[in-house]
Amino acid sequence: MPQSLSGTVGDAGEFVLVDALTSRFPQGDDVLVGPGDDAAVLLLPGGQAVVSVDMLVQKRDFRLDWSTATDIGHKAAAASMSDINAMGGRPTALLVALGAAPDLDAGWALELADGLAAEAAKVGCSVVGGDIARADAITISITAVGVCDHPVVRRSGAQPGDMVALAGRQGWAEAGLAVLGRGFRSPRVVVDAHRRPQPPYDAGPEAAELGATSMIDISDGLLQDLGHIASASALAIDVDTSCFEVPEPLQAVGAALGVDPMRFVLAGGEDFGVVATFGAARMLPAGWRVIGRVVDAGAPGVVTVDGALSEGAGGHQQFR
Amino acid sequence: MPQSLSGTVGDAGEFVLVDALTSRFPQGDDVLVGPGDDAAVLLLPGGQAVVSVDMLVQKRDFRLDWSTATDIGHKAAAASMSDINAMGGRPTALLVALGAAPDLDAGWALELADGLAAEAAKVGCSVVGGDIARADAITISITAVGVCDHPVVRRSGAQPGDMVALAGRQGWAEAGLAVLGRGFRSPRVVVDAHRRPQPPYDAGPEAAELGATSMIDISDGLLQDLGHIASASALAIDVDTSCFEVPEPLQAVGAALGVDPMRFVLAGGEDFGVVATFGAARMLPAGWRVIGRVVDAGAPGVVTVDGALSEGAGGHQQFR
Repeated sequence: MPQSLSGTVGDAGEFVLVDALTSRFPQGDDVLVGPGDDAAVLLLPGGQAVVSVDMLVQKRDFRLDWSTATDIGHKAAAASMSDINAMGGRPTALLVALGAAPDLDAGWALELADGLAAEAAKVGCSVVGGDIARADAITISITAVGVCDHPVVRRSGAQPGDMVALAGRQGWAEAGLAVLGRGFRSPRVVVDAHRRPQPPYDAGPEAAELGATSMIDISDGLLQDLGHIASASALAIDVDTSCFEVPEPLQAVGAALGVDPMRFVLAGGEDFGVVATFGAARMLPAGWRVIGRVVDAGAPGVVTVDGALSEGAGGHQQFR
Repeated sequence: MPQSLSGTVGDAGEFVLVDALTSRFPQGDDVLVGPGDDAAVLLLPGGQAVVSVDMLVQKRDFRLDWSTATDIGHKAAAASMSDINAMGGRPTALLVALGAAPDLDAGWALELADGLAAEAAKVGCSVVGGDIARADAITISITAVGVCDHPVVRRSGAQPGDMVALAGRQGWAEAGLAVLGRGFRSPRVVVDAHRRPQPPYDAGPEAAELGATSMIDISDGLLQDLGHIASASALAIDVDTSCFEVPEPLQAVGAALGVDPMRFVLAGGEDFGVVATFGAARMLPAGWRVIGRVVDAGAPGVVTVDGALSEGAGGHQQFR
């Protein structure tokens, strides 16, 4: 049923708005996965395509004084390709829509392009087209198209007793953002993690091949994104913090800023790791770390930390 | 070779900027058509996909006092699906990235969604996903994915002696824009044409089936877009204005505003008709009108009108 909303989009918040918007979109028979997952999956003659889009806006999603154009290109491409990764797919093509003001330095735009191309090249992906629009704020919309050699992994398939496992760094970009927000430029390793995330592009297809029951990429925060798996799968998830060794640079940032570094790990986004659920008996290859368990106790959609409801560890949500 | 640019993007202009940007993007073997055409064509396991993106920005590409949210949804979807049409493809899926401020009325966003869904439904296309970003100006980026039952038709295949033929309305949206720009709201039929273009979605696949040698959609202006065919095909095109019967509403607007209505026809964009070239002996079905000829006289890339260079009939170009 098409939903209605009163008030502003800020009143609704991102998730309610997206639910209402997608209720307005009927899906054809050639749509295998529609709105509500990391990417959509289309049935094409002879095959399937996995598609996703991300939009980044100057000052909201990136800052010109914190990142170079090349950094921003790397990160924009990574954010979109990560969505394909999170379905178990390999990105093959990007489309770039760029909104810019006429007084933007042309060299900046070319460096952005170089960053996009270089990040895409990491996985053999090509930037195949785009569009230019006039806009006051630099606006970058990246569409990723990918293919999947195994059945795609959705958010909704987690089973009670499954183990929850993480691939990729987690909390580094958030620590970098915290450092930059206080006016510092070091430790360099976390600032670089904010500027150029390093998604584990092999991990998504690997999880699909291993028969992961659900998967999502961590773009907005570990607990929040796990919440999407818990909601879609109508189960609860418990995260065991004893599974994490908080890396030294995160400890250093936490100490310097007076913040519990576990907060970077639990609430941080934009490292673009992937978290997936696997049948409990499954052996996981190197690069994966078990961090929790799917439980059928408690309210569906809830994520607990060490068995308790976590407070104040929310992630990023637009308009909120 | 990767190109460089000095100065601003406004100094460069859209076409030079796009050329320089795309020179930075190497293309993989799985890219059948890369940047520089109406859409890209990807080789996927078992098939092909045709993909394109368009970005529209409030005040630059649409105005909230001239168009409803539903109108804007229709038009944004039409603009992107037209690019698939212009390759000879059928759009099957759209992705929508929406940038909006928190104080945007949520109902406006839902009406936008309704317009997108309704335009997509005209051709059995689904809105399969999207993204939301926070932005000061409403920004809409639409990615279209399509399939093609026949070999795609590019801009570059026109042959000397080919006839040039047009399908769809031409000049109506431009006349509507002229009316709105003078503060009027009628004739309603041209204002509606500006608000909700009616691309001839059957014409693209039809032209592909008929073996069109080149094709483009008219988004920025008939002469300008024909210039892209002429440039890509390294030939010249002559448009014969005696082939056009200027429709009565365009004549009325021209008379009221003191403008030659043929200017709407030659320079107008955003009706999203398609113009294609066909071998001279080809019979064309209803809906197509021959409007000119491909010639190998004169400079490659030049478009003449009734055998003469046309002045002041340029179309739309970003930043200029």
